Amino acid sequence: MAMTMAEKILAKAAGKKESEAGEIVMANIDVAMTHDLTGPMSVESFEKIGVDDVWDPEKIVVVFDHQVPADSIEAAQNHIDMRKFVEEQGINNFYDVREGVCHQVLPEMGHIVPGEVVVGTDSHTCTHGALGAFSTGIGSTDMAMVFATGKLWFKVPETIKFNVTGNLAEKVYAKDVVLNIIGKIGADGATYKACEFGGETTQKMSVSDRMVLCNMAIEMGGKTGLVEPDQKTFDYLKGRTTKSYEVMKTDEDADSLEIMDIDVNDLEPQIACPHHVDNVKPVSEVEGTHIDQVFLGSCTNGRLSDLRTAAKILKGKRVSDSIRMLVIPASREVYTKAMDEGLLRTFVDAGALVCNPCCGPCLGGHVGLVGPGEVSLSTSNRNFKGRQGSSDAEVYLSSAAVAAASAITGKISDPRDL
Amino acid sequence: MAMTMAEKILAKAAGKKESEAGEIVMANIDVAMTHDLTGPMSVESFEKIGVDDVWDPEKIVVVFDHQVPADSIEAAQNHIDMRKFVEEQGINNFYDVREGVCHQVLPEMGHIVPGEVVVGTDSHTCTHGALGAFSTGIGSTDMAMVFATGKLWFKVPETIKFNVTGNLAEKVYAKDVVLNIIGKIGADGATYKACEFGGETTQKMSVSDRMVLCNMAIEMGGKTGLVEPDQKTFDYLKGRTTKSYEVMKTDEDADSLEIMDIDVNDLEPQIACPHHVDNVKPVSEVEGTHIDQVFLGSCTNGRLSDLRTAAKILKGKRVSDSIRMLVIPASREVYTKAMDEGLLRTFVDAGALVCNPCCGPCLGGHVGLVGPGEVSLSTSNRNFKGRQGSSDAEVYLSSAAVAAASAITGKISDPRDL
Repeated sequence: MAMTMAEKILAKAAGKKESEAGEIVMANIDVAMTHDLTGPMSVESFEKIGVDDVWDPEKIVVVFDHQVPADSIEAAQNHIDMRKFVEEQGINNFYDVREGVCHQVLPEMGHIVPGEVVVGTDSHTCTHGALGAFSTGIGSTDMAMVFATGKLWFKVPETIKFNVTGNLAEKVYAKDVVLNIIGKIGADGATYKACEFGGETTQKMSVSDRMVLCNMAIEMGGKTGLVEPDQKTFDYLKGRTTKSYEVMKTDEDADSLEIMDIDVNDLEPQIACPHHVDNVKPVSEVEGTHIDQVFLGSCTNGRLSDLRTAAKILKGKRVSDSIRMLVIPASREVYTKAMDEGLLRTFVDAGALVCNPCCGPCLGGHVGLVGPGEVSLSTSNRNFKGRQGSSDAEVYLSSAAVAAASAITGKISDPRDL
Repeated sequence: MAMTMAEKILAKAAGKKESEAGEIVMANIDVAMTHDLTGPMSVESFEKIGVDDVWDPEKIVVVFDHQVPADSIEAAQNHIDMRKFVEEQGINNFYDVREGVCHQVLPEMGHIVPGEVVVGTDSHTCTHGALGAFSTGIGSTDMAMVFATGKLWFKVPETIKFNVTGNLAEKVYAKDVVLNIIGKIGADGATYKACEFGGETTQKMSVSDRMVLCNMAIEMGGKTGLVEPDQKTFDYLKGRTTKSYEVMKTDEDADSLEIMDIDVNDLEPQIACPHHVDNVKPVSEVEGTHIDQVFLGSCTNGRLSDLRTAAKILKGKRVSDSIRMLVIPASREVYTKAMDEGLLRTFVDAGALVCNPCCGPCLGGHVGLVGPGEVSLSTSNRNFKGRQGSSDAEVYLSSAAVAAASAITGKISDPRDL
């Protein structure tokens, strides 16, 4: 039977030869990730089940990234509770405050491989589909059941495959592509679908750029993002993981497959305007918009490639005195490499503030909140009302290049003009 | 008339030839510093006075350091309000979220010179006496009057001069000297006195180390810390300031002068134990004490020399998995130099987390709080109950060397044993 990647992966995880969209399967979970914010709720629910031990401590990964270092006594208490859980359960895959954002740490540390089923108590768990895994965000009570049984039910999703073709113009990036798609199909345009990104443009993208695409799948309602594994995937995995893996690809004649062609030849930088991710406009329509803060970072665009892009634009320039710019590398690895390459020095010299790896202002948690009336330009993934602090603030989303260019001018700017 | 430094500086500031301890003088203020936490209260009080303009915008310095980047909507609002004040009043000496801790930024940026009167709405404003200024912390309502008039009344303090002699043993530092003094004379041992540090040992100390001494003057009740300016002072000021200044020194036969001899020849590393700064013990008595977090930073010990000391100990070693270590350089300048020298790389490689320049956990504000039952070892200046988060936590204070050594072992350790 012709199947999609999603169908093949879920069939395998359910111990079946085949599965088809709409079917309910009980899948074995390969990786279960939780973090400092949703972890305590998962643990609390797990303890109510009455099972002493998690099903497999080696398949659980815990990352502290949302409130690091602890910004309140409550956060410190959450950390204490999670450290205790990790120790009691013998969970070795534990990354304390120093490691970075979960969606960057998991692939870096080799926890993600093609063909596996990954669940995480974070909506952007779909990021990991960039390596060909079926990876999706779940709630804390679902996670409790995963902790207890190692299994979770899924309705097998239909697949929408974005066939991305054409050459990206200079200073146009994966973020612009995915914002453009979301703007076209809307925040509910792919509800409960596996969002597979393919086509020659995707194939030419680095794994980091593919992560940008998959990260944003949830913003159009997707159950997961996916990219077919190829040599770039294998190269990324080399030296990072000792796991064996199976590569599964979508059959073009699968019944549940819908294909949407996306031509990026004439794409200009895209901006998601307040207060919805699908309120997307080309930069030319919002150029000159006043901003107060620029945030370069997050699981969407806090990777080395993003920092390189921004540093190239900021090198020898100054961040406008009228704004502040926060640079938050997505992980310790990114931070270290960016330091070695001189990128952090470039940011500091330009007048930006470099923070420790963490989720930062993305979720309005504990670093870099914006106040009433303020405007944030952010490379992260959500611009809902109140998302980065005050509900009277506004958030625009963009690529790292737009962020860097706008930091210099102090207003939303087209990086191609600099 | 024979006078102390404090008497001479205050006399000059009051437009008088002489002043003596106990006298009330109305002094002209040379530098008035406020920050993001106490600034809004100062501004609010100033606005109640009904004067439109501050007396001299060039003499006011505003630094954001306590909650940077904003960790809450309230903090973001405070920042907004202070930025507005700064703009309306034409205050050019404004350091937004990117610059660092006020007590490091002011000297670095050349705002502090010998012989001046400096007030700040922060208790550790006494730090600046290391450059021979009369510098003291004041309340927000006092600051409002300074904003309005440029003047403030002072009762001229008596002076206690610590005549520090002897050679510091290896891995024993200025922090150990001042903790030892505080332990000896108690938290109220120098109440309302000018604490002058002199003697051959002080003379051999760098300006950074003298700042450590003066920073802690308030912890024994001192009105200010002071060190007689010398060639080291002049070298520090060179290239940093264009201000002219007058060097004033204490006459040894001044009436209000008390001298206390401090011999540091056999001094071992000192630890201030919970919950009082004057609960000081030699490290040998508390070695092996369990810790959960190490904080290297603050206006006490977040300078380049401290980071160098710690990095030397941590080089090629690992921070214990049982604790987390936070490294927070005191300023952008310190951060940048520490990056250039490879110190930040050393910290990250050892498993420490490097944060952006700010006050950090020192005040239990927004970064690195400790939870109930946890123990912090900190290079900062206060260990009061609840100071770094939970009131059920404990804080020990030490030098950077003790902090680094203890980070490796995961318990309070003597750096001379490593």
